[in-house]
Amino acid sequence: MSRVSLLEVKIPEDRYEIRLSGSGGQGLVLAAMLLAEAIGADASKSVIQTKSYGPEARGGASKSDVVVSTGEIYYPKALHLDLLLAMTQESLNKYYPDLKAGGTLVIDDTLVSKLPTQDYYGLSFTRIAKEQLKNVMVANVISLGAIAAITNVVGLDALLTAVLARAPRGTEEVNRIAVETGYQEGLALKLKKNPPTN
Amino acid sequence: MSRVSLLEVKIPEDRYEIRLSGSGGQGLVLAAMLLAEAIGADASKSVIQTKSYGPEARGGASKSDVVVSTGEIYYPKALHLDLLLAMTQESLNKYYPDLKAGGTLVIDDTLVSKLPTQDYYGLSFTRIAKEQLKNVMVANVISLGAIAAITNVVGLDALLTAVLARAPRGTEEVNRIAVETGYQEGLALKLKKNPPTN
Repeated sequence: MSRVSLLEVKIPEDRYEIRLSGSGGQGLVLAAMLLAEAIGADASKSVIQTKSYGPEARGGASKSDVVVSTGEIYYPKALHLDLLLAMTQESLNKYYPDLKAGGTLVIDDTLVSKLPTQDYYGLSFTRIAKEQLKNVMVANVISLGAIAAITNVVGLDALLTAVLARAPRGTEEVNRIAVETGYQEGLALKLKKNPPTN
Repeated sequence: MSRVSLLEVKIPEDRYEIRLSGSGGQGLVLAAMLLAEAIGADASKSVIQTKSYGPEARGGASKSDVVVSTGEIYYPKALHLDLLLAMTQESLNKYYPDLKAGGTLVIDDTLVSKLPTQDYYGLSFTRIAKEQLKNVMVANVISLGAIAAITNVVGLDALLTAVLARAPRGTEEVNRIAVETGYQEGLALKLKKNPPTN
C-alpha cells in the first residue's frame, strides 16, 4: 500500500479500553459482546466491540476488544488497555505489552502461571466453572462477574441483565450463579489487595 | 468532553467497508461475524468486525460493520460504505446516507419497499427463508450467499466453510442450502442487471 489518506481522530480522555483474551473456544468473543451490552445499557456511555480476523488474529491467542467512552467513539481500536483479561498463558504473553501503566490485569490462575508483574488479580475461573458449577463453558461469565467487582466499568445488575438476556433456555440459573460467584470472588480479592482503612 | 488528543490515522485505499443492518433478532451480528471469518480465511486480508452499543446503537435499527484491507487496519470504523445490506426499511433509511457514491446496495424486498435509488439489488431473503427453507432464521445466511455472488469480497467456498463451522449441530444442511440459494439468486440478479456482452 503506497497511497494513504490521513484522518485526524479525537481520542477523549475518559476513554476506557478492555481486552478479553484467551484461546478460541473459551467464549471470549461472546463475553465481550455481553460486557458491551451491559455497559451500553447505561445511556450515557458509548461502547464499541471489535474482533479481528485474518493476519491480525492468527497465532493461537483469541481476543475481543471493548472500548467505552461517554462521548462518540471516533477511534474504536484499542491502543492502550485499561483492563486486560488473560485466560491463557499465550494470550497474556501476547497482549501484556498492550496494557498501559497502572492498567488492571486479571488472569485465570488455573491456566496462567508465569506473570510479568506482581500487580494482578488472579482467580481460578476455569477451576471454579468445572468444580463448583460443573460447567467449564461458564468460566467466561465468571470472569465478567469478577471484572464487575474489580473495576467500575459495569454494575452487577446491568451485567446480570445482559447475561440472562442471552443465556440459552435452561442455562439461566447456571449463568446467574456464574456472574454472582465471579462477583463475590472478585470482590474478596479486591478487598484483600486493598484493605479498607478506617 | 473538552480535552482531546489527536491521532493521525492512515486509511489505505484498498479498504472495503461493509455494513449489515436490519432489526435486532435478524441475526446480523452473527452474519457479520461469519462474513468476517470467511474473508479473514484469506491470509492476505485483514478484517475487523465492529458492533456498537449504547447511544450510537439505539433507535430500532441494528447493525454490524466489517472492514477489510490488505494492510493493517488502523481505523476500524466504517466511514463510507462500499456495501450496505438493509434487511428492513428502517435500517435502509438510517444507513443509506453512509453508502458511498457507486457503492453496492442490497435489500430484502420482502421488508423494504421505499428505495432512495434505482441502483440496488433486491432479493426476497426473508420470503425465501420462510417458504423455500421453512426456517426464517436463515434469511441472514441467504443474504451472505447473495453478497458473495454480487460482490467479490468473499468466495463461495470460504463462505460455506465459515458458515458450516458455526452452524449448530443438526442445522448444517439448512445452512448449506441457505448459502447456495442466496448465491444462486444473487448471481441470477447480477447477470440480469449486467448482462454479459460477447
